[in-house]
Amino acid sequence: MATFGDIGVAAGLNILFAVAFLIAFAFLRLQPINDRVYFPKWYLKGLRSSPVNAGSVVGKFVNLDWRSYVRFLNWVPDALRMPEPELIDHAGLDSAVYLRIYLLGLKIFVPVALLSWAVLVPVNWTNNTLAKSQAADHNLQYSDIDKLSISNVPFGSPRFWTHIVMAYAFTFWTCYTLRKEYATVATMRLHFLASEGRRPDQFTVLVRNVPPDQHESVSEAVEHFFLVNHPDHYLTHQVVTNANKLAKLINERKSQQNWLDYYQLKYSRNQSQRPVKKTGFLGLWGEKVDAIDHQTAKIETLSKQISEERERVKTDPKCIMPAGFVSFKTRWAAAVCAQTQQTRNPTLWLTEWAPEPRDIYWDNLAIPYFSLAVRRLVTSVAFFFLTFFFMIPVTIVQSLANIEGIEKWAPFLKPIIEVPFIKSVIQGFLPGIALKIFLIVLPTILMMMARFEGFLSKSTLERRAALRYYVFNFFNVFLVSVIAGTAFQQLDSFLHQSANEIPRTIGVAIPMKATFFITYVMVDGWAGVAGEILRLKPLIFFHLKNFFLVKTEKDRDEAMDPGSIGFNTGEPQIQLYFLLGLVYAVVTPIFLPFILVFFALAYVVFRHQIINVYNQEYESAAAFWPGVHGRIISALVFSQLVLMGLMSTKGNAQSTPILIALPVLTIWFHRFCKGRYEPAFIRYPLQEAMMKDTLERSREPNLNVKSYLEYAYIHPVFKNEDEDDEDEYEGECNNGKLLDGSVLVPTKRHSRRHTHDPSKFSDDRESLEN
Amino acid sequence: MATFGDIGVAAGLNILFAVAFLIAFAFLRLQPINDRVYFPKWYLKGLRSSPVNAGSVVGKFVNLDWRSYVRFLNWVPDALRMPEPELIDHAGLDSAVYLRIYLLGLKIFVPVALLSWAVLVPVNWTNNTLAKSQAADHNLQYSDIDKLSISNVPFGSPRFWTHIVMAYAFTFWTCYTLRKEYATVATMRLHFLASEGRRPDQFTVLVRNVPPDQHESVSEAVEHFFLVNHPDHYLTHQVVTNANKLAKLINERKSQQNWLDYYQLKYSRNQSQRPVKKTGFLGLWGEKVDAIDHQTAKIETLSKQISEERERVKTDPKCIMPAGFVSFKTRWAAAVCAQTQQTRNPTLWLTEWAPEPRDIYWDNLAIPYFSLAVRRLVTSVAFFFLTFFFMIPVTIVQSLANIEGIEKWAPFLKPIIEVPFIKSVIQGFLPGIALKIFLIVLPTILMMMARFEGFLSKSTLERRAALRYYVFNFFNVFLVSVIAGTAFQQLDSFLHQSANEIPRTIGVAIPMKATFFITYVMVDGWAGVAGEILRLKPLIFFHLKNFFLVKTEKDRDEAMDPGSIGFNTGEPQIQLYFLLGLVYAVVTPIFLPFILVFFALAYVVFRHQIINVYNQEYESAAAFWPGVHGRIISALVFSQLVLMGLMSTKGNAQSTPILIALPVLTIWFHRFCKGRYEPAFIRYPLQEAMMKDTLERSREPNLNVKSYLEYAYIHPVFKNEDEDDEDEYEGECNNGKLLDGSVLVPTKRHSRRHTHDPSKFSDDRESLEN
Repeated sequence: MATFGDIGVAAGLNILFAVAFLIAFAFLRLQPINDRVYFPKWYLKGLRSSPVNAGSVVGKFVNLDWRSYVRFLNWVPDALRMPEPELIDHAGLDSAVYLRIYLLGLKIFVPVALLSWAVLVPVNWTNNTLAKSQAADHNLQYSDIDKLSISNVPFGSPRFWTHIVMAYAFTFWTCYTLRKEYATVATMRLHFLASEGRRPDQFTVLVRNVPPDQHESVSEAVEHFFLVNHPDHYLTHQVVTNANKLAKLINERKSQQNWLDYYQLKYSRNQSQRPVKKTGFLGLWGEKVDAIDHQTAKIETLSKQISEERERVKTDPKCIMPAGFVSFKTRWAAAVCAQTQQTRNPTLWLTEWAPEPRDIYWDNLAIPYFSLAVRRLVTSVAFFFLTFFFMIPVTIVQSLANIEGIEKWAPFLKPIIEVPFIKSVIQGFLPGIALKIFLIVLPTILMMMARFEGFLSKSTLERRAALRYYVFNFFNVFLVSVIAGTAFQQLDSFLHQSANEIPRTIGVAIPMKATFFITYVMVDGWAGVAGEILRLKPLIFFHLKNFFLVKTEKDRDEAMDPGSIGFNTGEPQIQLYFLLGLVYAVVTPIFLPFILVFFALAYVVFRHQIINVYNQEYESAAAFWPGVHGRIISALVFSQLVLMGLMSTKGNAQSTPILIALPVLTIWFHRFCKGRYEPAFIRYPLQEAMMKDTLERSREPNLNVKSYLEYAYIHPVFKNEDEDDEDEYEGECNNGKLLDGSVLVPTKRHSRRHTHDPSKFSDDRESLEN
Repeated sequence: MATFGDIGVAAGLNILFAVAFLIAFAFLRLQPINDRVYFPKWYLKGLRSSPVNAGSVVGKFVNLDWRSYVRFLNWVPDALRMPEPELIDHAGLDSAVYLRIYLLGLKIFVPVALLSWAVLVPVNWTNNTLAKSQAADHNLQYSDIDKLSISNVPFGSPRFWTHIVMAYAFTFWTCYTLRKEYATVATMRLHFLASEGRRPDQFTVLVRNVPPDQHESVSEAVEHFFLVNHPDHYLTHQVVTNANKLAKLINERKSQQNWLDYYQLKYSRNQSQRPVKKTGFLGLWGEKVDAIDHQTAKIETLSKQISEERERVKTDPKCIMPAGFVSFKTRWAAAVCAQTQQTRNPTLWLTEWAPEPRDIYWDNLAIPYFSLAVRRLVTSVAFFFLTFFFMIPVTIVQSLANIEGIEKWAPFLKPIIEVPFIKSVIQGFLPGIALKIFLIVLPTILMMMARFEGFLSKSTLERRAALRYYVFNFFNVFLVSVIAGTAFQQLDSFLHQSANEIPRTIGVAIPMKATFFITYVMVDGWAGVAGEILRLKPLIFFHLKNFFLVKTEKDRDEAMDPGSIGFNTGEPQIQLYFLLGLVYAVVTPIFLPFILVFFALAYVVFRHQIINVYNQEYESAAAFWPGVHGRIISALVFSQLVLMGLMSTKGNAQSTPILIALPVLTIWFHRFCKGRYEPAFIRYPLQEAMMKDTLERSREPNLNVKSYLEYAYIHPVFKNEDEDDEDEYEGECNNGKLLDGSVLVPTKRHSRRHTHDPSKFSDDRESLEN
């Protein structure tokens, strides 16, 4: 039962942290040496080069211009200044719409906060239930915050009608805003799709589960099938090859190349001594050899293997997967093929829109239908156990991970561990570490589950992982905080409670946890978001790489880690705030301003990051919005059920029939929105396709679509094959550019591993090193 | 706690009833005068004419050939003899697949019954729990039936593992059979669609929600839109007119014509006196007039109104609804258009397969999207209240419908009611009557709800009504019988019980209700089905009509009421038996033979009826199968949950984790089947369409599809308009035949009201009258 004072202290502390982060950021970002950490997006776009303004050597590393420090908060208006259309152009629709989620939070909660402060706070405050209870029972503690909450309204008071009316008002406002936002995003998506230039995925359909045929190869079967069934429209196709082993070898060579670079750089700095390395495990023991020669030999072996494997993949029919990318003469025909069923057996010749080339998750293209169904079952069961039973392995690890365990397993560490100080630190931290590590790797586990489930594009993988992360958070963060006990204990107790008891249990606990969640919002939401802008990890890694590996401008480009929004972790976090805001809007109005600060701060910070830092790996044209919408709706329904439960314990059970209409209407509203707006995210209207086709035909009557599409969908390892044998050997490849000369928007992963064609903008760059 | 003896008596009684019905049927069907009641399908097909074999006048009415009575059960092998392909040809795929539901019951329950009698009955029988309990408590009654059920196994006995293994075996067998059946039905459907001749609905798409345009009429808008967006494929279209008022007027004239026929017949039989009628309410009071003149005048007025209204509908643009039937040059193009989205706004230009012309429910074609969404909400809420609160109005009616109430409302009945005998009858029956009437009109209410909801075809209306009827039965017949109390009281108690308590409550009650359900099966299933074949109501009505209305052969054709399967009431009944069979398979194996008798008897009876009697109104090509499959799955899952609940009360709670896998696997199996087979019922594969198109093009290169399609989709009231003005006036019209000369399979409603073109087979008929 925190008082205003306690909350104030916590708020002050967190504001201090947040401000410290922001100041550190403001300072660090002005240093030229950090330029590539804080503005990588501009480098990737070729619009910024290494700073050259200051003449002195020091000036290249440290900003000596005191005036720039005065305007240290300038990044905020800068971030807000770029208009949305330009933002879409600059960072893609995904990013622009992602920001709208934060904006949506402000749109929903600013009026809700105003209304609830104007109406509910006075209604709650002008009671004395808590004071009376305290008079009766001196052990009872309550705070000023509780005086502002619904707890202060006496049992069975007619004042509760205010809360019910407010619940209606908030529901209608939320739904109104959601509908408007859904309509806007759908329009933005359609407009984006309509206005974007010619892209291979507009003409292409992915066909999977091509049935095996004794007399025909996959390629022939695909060609014959589409020539027969889409005779006027079929253009060309590319079969999918299983090049997973090849890709692995190329990655291996890449990593060996990094080591070679490292040793070469080391040697060039200290020419007196050839660097040596041990050949054993992790370079810790084994024979000492000349490192440069060793690495060179290794890379040569790998290159040979790679070219062998490449030949094998090209010629061996076993490497051809029963899937292909089929291109059509018009967008209309591709839209038709993607949205219709081809044959009697709906598990063969499955067609769907091809994801854009960089969005494809190649490994999953060849999974047959039955296997997919089994995988879906397995992941659902696995996710259920992960959500409700993850504490079991964590507890086991905790019990193993004690001092004795470590000494038994790794006896050579014994002398270090036995130092009293280190021992006590380990004993204090170890138990928590297992849980912490689990929570850190959880998003990775969820991504792995989504991959196992067999989705075909990275965007779908992330969306699925986001949904699961939200569900996990709902049970293991939200519910566990509201009601004591692990998720499994709760599941067990919910199974033993009646359907009308569960909302009561949660509803009663909700007002009591307000202060906890206020602190949570400040730590996770305020300080956490401010920490995001500082980019501590990429900052450190960049400077490490810069020191050990970087020889050329290209290497430096590779050392940049712009990162991406991380939809699979970011969106569930926002959704948790929506949930908290909706649940507390009626119950504890004082909660709302804290949420508002989060949404506003996060909006500014992420807008800045999206403009200057993040580089999206793919563009799904806001395909995630139906999920975002659905999760807010589910939070709204949950908040209504909880309010119903709370009301029935407050001597106001007669309000239940009135409140039950709210979830019914909300679910109906959701279904309405689904029917009205979701198709824009799933299907591609024929009228749009036809308009685009007609326009193109009149503009470029002699366009050769076939040559444009011929190599659009080849596996990344085959792209730029010719350059590859020389360039890749030099640790370089040019994946951002397609063979036909059209340049795709560069993406994170490509850029991280292989930078752009340097010829394009290396002329206006200077090397920092010499 | 019935003993074997009690059950035997009940069974004997019901067998007696059933046999009596069957004998009565066998006798009545042999009488020539009833020929049209028991073989209307053959008349409608034109393959049978009024019997002419016996020379004597009596021979026309009564069968005097004693030999035919000897073979009175011959109809059974006759019914079974027709092979399935011929049956499909004769009665349509819907009917043939409907019969497969009964067969499916046999396929599932014959092995289940054998296995459970071989394994479970001995396991249950060789215990003495019930005997022991009775020894301890002499009030406890138990019967031999209970000795065969799971109740006889002692608390916590390891023998329960047998039941668990059996539950797995039954689940796997059921799923295996379901999957096989789904595959067979899907193949049958696809084969049926592939092999059927040219039909207008193969080329036609229904487009709804055409947006209003100031500059264009609906017809122009449709033409322009499809010319632009399907330029190579669009052929022609027909707009939908709102002719509901016209249809009403025509029906009114039809009914007046019937009265005219009646009076004319009366006059012809007794020429001494012109018939008179009173003009007031129901002909009970008012001025007396010459009936024939009065009716003739009335019909003339109506005919005038009809032709005025017909003109108005044709010319008034307000009668044009924003919907149309768009026909394409090929089936491929129609398949494409039906399965794709046309414009950005998914609520405009909605396209879907046109139902076949006689399946269309014309009144609902013009409902806009938002209104549909609201109607869906309203019907869902209404259905919820209907299911759980229908007892409230019934109780109110019961309290009003007492002697005093009737006397108050209709004082003139007082002298009759006050007769002691009548009074006691009324007092005894009245309370039950309100409920009985409600249950009789329930299918009609459900059909009205489905109509209000806005479905577009009669087949969809029936499917939706069937689903709702099943849900209603589940709560108000099954659950109410298992647990005491109305559905609402149960809902209330379930809300107050925990999720793991509910299956227990039901599970414990299940074995105790076995004898009740055995009786239910015998009354509703055995005697009820045997009563169905007797067709008492159509028999009486036919003879009444025959006496009062029939003048010509055509009138006699109209007097036939072949009826149809009545999917909306028949299928939910079968589903109830599936539910009972699956629930009792493990718990009370003795139940299964009773179910088997039902399935076998019903199969034979309905096969006979389908061959000889029913005349389906439409052909949906077994579109109902996914619903049938889904409801059996839900019954299976329910039975598993109930078994889990029962086991946990039997001291076998450790089996819960093993049993919980069953519903998970079953639901997964359902999803798998849905993905694998359901598309065959929803979509139309392009390959199929293309094959059919190609075949047709090579066979009939000069086919003029346009003229074939031009008038296929006009409102029934406009069909045969030319003949109408003369023929309809004579109480006759020719709807079975389309303008273009192609004859559709005649349908019940058409046939009931308007018989076939008489010229086709009237020559081999004789009139009974002169």
